[in-house]
Amino acid sequence: MQDLVGKEFRCLDKGFVRLVDVMGNDDSIVQAARVSYGTGTKKVHEDRGLIRYLMRHQHTTPFEMVEFKFHVKLPIFVARQWIRHRTANVNEYSGRYSEMKDEFYTPHEQQLRKQSVTNKQGRSEEGFDTNEAMDILSSFQQHADTSYAHYEALLEKGVAREIARIVLPVSNYTEWYWKVDLHNLFHFLRLRLDAHAQYEIRVYAEAMADIVKAIVPVAYEAFEDYMLGSVKLSKVELQVLKTMLNGSVPSEITMEEIGLKKREQNEFLDKIRILLS
Amino acid sequence: MQDLVGKEFRCLDKGFVRLVDVMGNDDSIVQAARVSYGTGTKKVHEDRGLIRYLMRHQHTTPFEMVEFKFHVKLPIFVARQWIRHRTANVNEYSGRYSEMKDEFYTPHEQQLRKQSVTNKQGRSEEGFDTNEAMDILSSFQQHADTSYAHYEALLEKGVAREIARIVLPVSNYTEWYWKVDLHNLFHFLRLRLDAHAQYEIRVYAEAMADIVKAIVPVAYEAFEDYMLGSVKLSKVELQVLKTMLNGSVPSEITMEEIGLKKREQNEFLDKIRILLS
Amino acid sequence: MQDLVGKEFRCLDKGFVRLVDVMGNDDSIVQAARVSYGTGTKKVHEDRGLIRYLMRHQHTTPFEMVEFKFHVKLPIFVARQWIRHRTANVNEYSGRYSEMKDEFYTPHEQQLRKQSVTNKQGRSEEGFDTNEAMDILSSFQQHADTSYAHYEALLEKGVAREIARIVLPVSNYTEWYWKVDLHNLFHFLRLRLDAHAQYEIRVYAEAMADIVKAIVPVAYEAFEDYMLGSVKLSKVELQVLKTMLNGSVPSEITMEEIGLKKREQNEFLDKIRILLS
Amino acid sequence: MQDLVGKEFRCLDKGFVRLVDVMGNDDSIVQAARVSYGTGTKKVHEDRGLIRYLMRHQHTTPFEMVEFKFHVKLPIFVARQWIRHRTANVNEYSGRYSEMKDEFYTPHEQQLRKQSVTNKQGRSEEGFDTNEAMDILSSFQQHADTSYAHYEALLEKGVAREIARIVLPVSNYTEWYWKVDLHNLFHFLRLRLDAHAQYEIRVYAEAMADIVKAIVPVAYEAFEDYMLGSVKLSKVELQVLKTMLNGSVPSEITMEEIGLKKREQNEFLDKIRILLS
Repeated sequence: MQDLVGKEFRCLDKGFVRLVDVMGNDDSIVQAARVSYGTGTKKVHEDRGLIRYLMRHQHTTPFEMVEFKFHVKLPIFVARQWIRHRTANVNEYSGRYSEMKDEFYTPHEQQLRKQSVTNKQGRSEEGFDTNEAMDILSSFQQHADTSYAHYEALLEKGVAREIARIVLPVSNYTEWYWKVDLHNLFHFLRLRLDAHAQYEIRVYAEAMADIVKAIVPVAYEAFEDYMLGSVKLSKVELQVLKTMLNGSVPSEITMEEIGLKKREQNEFLDKIRILLS
Repeated sequence: MQDLVGKEFRCLDKGFVRLVDVMGNDDSIVQAARVSYGTGTKKVHEDRGLIRYLMRHQHTTPFEMVEFKFHVKLPIFVARQWIRHRTANVNEYSGRYSEMKDEFYTPHEQQLRKQSVTNKQGRSEEGFDTNEAMDILSSFQQHADTSYAHYEALLEKGVAREIARIVLPVSNYTEWYWKVDLHNLFHFLRLRLDAHAQYEIRVYAEAMADIVKAIVPVAYEAFEDYMLGSVKLSKVELQVLKTMLNGSVPSEITMEEIGLKKREQNEFLDKIRILLS
Repeated sequence: MQDLVGKEFRCLDKGFVRLVDVMGNDDSIVQAARVSYGTGTKKVHEDRGLIRYLMRHQHTTPFEMVEFKFHVKLPIFVARQWIRHRTANVNEYSGRYSEMKDEFYTPHEQQLRKQSVTNKQGRSEEGFDTNEAMDILSSFQQHADTSYAHYEALLEKGVAREIARIVLPVSNYTEWYWKVDLHNLFHFLRLRLDAHAQYEIRVYAEAMADIVKAIVPVAYEAFEDYMLGSVKLSKVELQVLKTMLNGSVPSEITMEEIGLKKREQNEFLDKIRILLS
Repeated sequence: MQDLVGKEFRCLDKGFVRLVDVMGNDDSIVQAARVSYGTGTKKVHEDRGLIRYLMRHQHTTPFEMVEFKFHVKLPIFVARQWIRHRTANVNEYSGRYSEMKDEFYTPHEQQLRKQSVTNKQGRSEEGFDTNEAMDILSSFQQHADTSYAHYEALLEKGVAREIARIVLPVSNYTEWYWKVDLHNLFHFLRLRLDAHAQYEIRVYAEAMADIVKAIVPVAYEAFEDYMLGSVKLSKVELQVLKTMLNGSVPSEITMEEIGLKKREQNEFLDKIRILLS
């Protein structure tokens, strides 16, 4: 654990995640659960089994007994998604007190991609040819430079920091301390490790997942097995699955008849891909 | 109430606050408090007295029984301060799903002011001469125009919305639904109506205060009397006040002797200004 | 809706749930989601589809935009389970301000059951023969009477209410106002409608489910289809299911080999019972 | 710190508070605040001054960066007051999983007092003569014994634990782990150290205050000076105070004229007692 505290995990082009402090470990989860269950279950479960049982049955309160504190440097548009997780404590760098720094996010060429047509909220797999990509990326850099020069000129004229900063784009980097309990951190990770999360926040989630895995290996494994790697099937999807067990192929017509609408048919096939391979 | 619902209160140059829905009124506070106190206090207090008693003694739960839902249009940098109030429900316009609009905040000339020297986090009273102000304000406008043109060009090239938007400055307007209970709304108002709050969020707090005043007039009056208009004196400040009651003038030396440090002396004098006038 | 407000739904022998007020309905969920998605998705989804999409993908914030306020009369031991749901507002009857009433919960004969051996936290299906049951139930009644007589005697002697009440058993009824948003209410219902929830709180969850169904029928249906009626399969369980699709029977040996431990094998068979019938 | 962890602080007749773990100290508050303020304020404040400034101005987020975990043994009626502080994590002993223990709170003779007439929610200073007190206290003990014997008899008959426990009075001891950040702990302490808090919870608050004071001495001192020892004066009270500075005595008539109602006059005199002594 001591090796991890303070170590910077680089994220994006100029950001990082750094574990500042942690309270507890796998044992703390067991210890708290034992308070709930009294002595009654002591013999039945060994620790690993208990942690996995708790995760599987969504007995979430023992996981709240472990607390993580991170120092994060991240672009403002990522911070805006992140802050929607309300059950956490935050201390952010203030653009009213201090000058914002000349640091802006520019995507890596591989991440510069076209709007997805099927997924209204995300990017597709399709990129740009190298020349076009270079043009676009340098336009990002140029715009950041111009914006920061503008900001500095305003400050030089004496404009109050809290006003001058309004010209800075949301690619500007900010920093914060973020403190959260393990249950809420798992919730954050489940949402932000997901393929539908924006790439730029997923990068941070992945770095934090590595840290969490090192601190609470047993709980993290349970999280992977029962949360990340799990699949939730609706009432109707179970009906379709039942016909499959009886040998039917999940054709559009079968699925439609059982009550699975077009859009959900694809979602279903995505979910059970592992069963069909 | 019905007259208020849906009515737009203009804020800043292009924003607004609009009451979408409300649950409860002054009576709901009384009704909830009566559950706690049982029949025992029914005769003693009349409703107004009860509400004022609750406010005075920070019995906050009955105020949580009233709920407000607002539709707000606001610049991103204001949204970033606002969202720090975690005990509320939010649905914000998404720049991943939809295009951000060509609407940016430009301060009114009167609000374009210099950095305060005494207050590290705010603007001073000092403005700019008209020519300089006009120059600065048009530089804001120009920068917004350039940034939006850049954004549109990126979209036209096919860049995913979630990437393209990173060039937009935090003066860009966003929108959200914000739902909060009256206790937490009073907390928001107390902080954001304060002279130290940034002007641009204070404007929204003032509009909301008008709405709240119309919906729960008795509770709002109690809030003004016991919260907004109240003054909190520390142990040492009370000692200084005591010497004043005995006829002494609160000189620097007296205050210093009693234990009030330089910085706090000014804070103290500010607080008791009303007593000295 | 107006027919529901104020109507008492009887729960247990002397308790009730009563809808006091509600803010919003199915439309409010759609309205809030539209703010997030902007105009972009307006044509694509009709309202019902949108609500179901939100539920299916756990886009929970639009459900937070509907708010319910209940008046509940319930035994203290039920209140102690209930209050663990923190994201709600509560005003409870106070035994410090007012006398507790002579009302205690006595189980119905059908609910007087033996300790489960397999389920450490619950009752089994096995009851008592009528004579023994009657004896036990009258012992409950007698103990409640004795305790209340004791309480009254203490009050008569002048003992402060806040002390005297400590002799009252947790079967004593209390009352509260409980206000919660629809997302958190669904979470409450999911846990408390579950077969593993204690019967005495499940009764309240069922009454509230009826109320919710009447107020937000579309959202409730989505909740039933995607939450209540859904089944979550872990990574390993999916592997077992895959062998089943290939014609194997989920024998203990197969399951063990794939990595499903004894205890989880039963949980798995319980979950997929619908597929096997 | 290490000396404190694990040490039992006895509370009431059979309860305790025990610090299980702590994350951070006074330095963590400073460290978090420095993130917000950037380098700008580094020279101005030394650490102690900064912590006091934060407390004085209710900049609460840096205090949220310190986290405490306690193990507490407490009577159920105390647990019911305590749990109303929602911003904390809890793992409680479960009477469904395990047998409740034969431990019940009996007040010390000095705490056995009569109902207050002036304060509807509390006890007065008036006790009972020794004989009467002994009678009452032994009636508590007897009732606890009878209740527990009843509970055991039910368990012996095979009645499920979750049902049998309903005969146990709220004086029965339970246990929990309780984890909270320093800001919310200060809020808890401010309310529960208050003279109006019920004695039986105040005892726990006092034990925790001692622990907190040892872990974050500078923050605790600031809490005492600016929160515990402070006095909040309303708009009208300030007016009365002003006449006092001009030499007037705060007679009922003066106060009435200025707008201070009867009930508030006493509250005011209570508050400024220190000024009048």
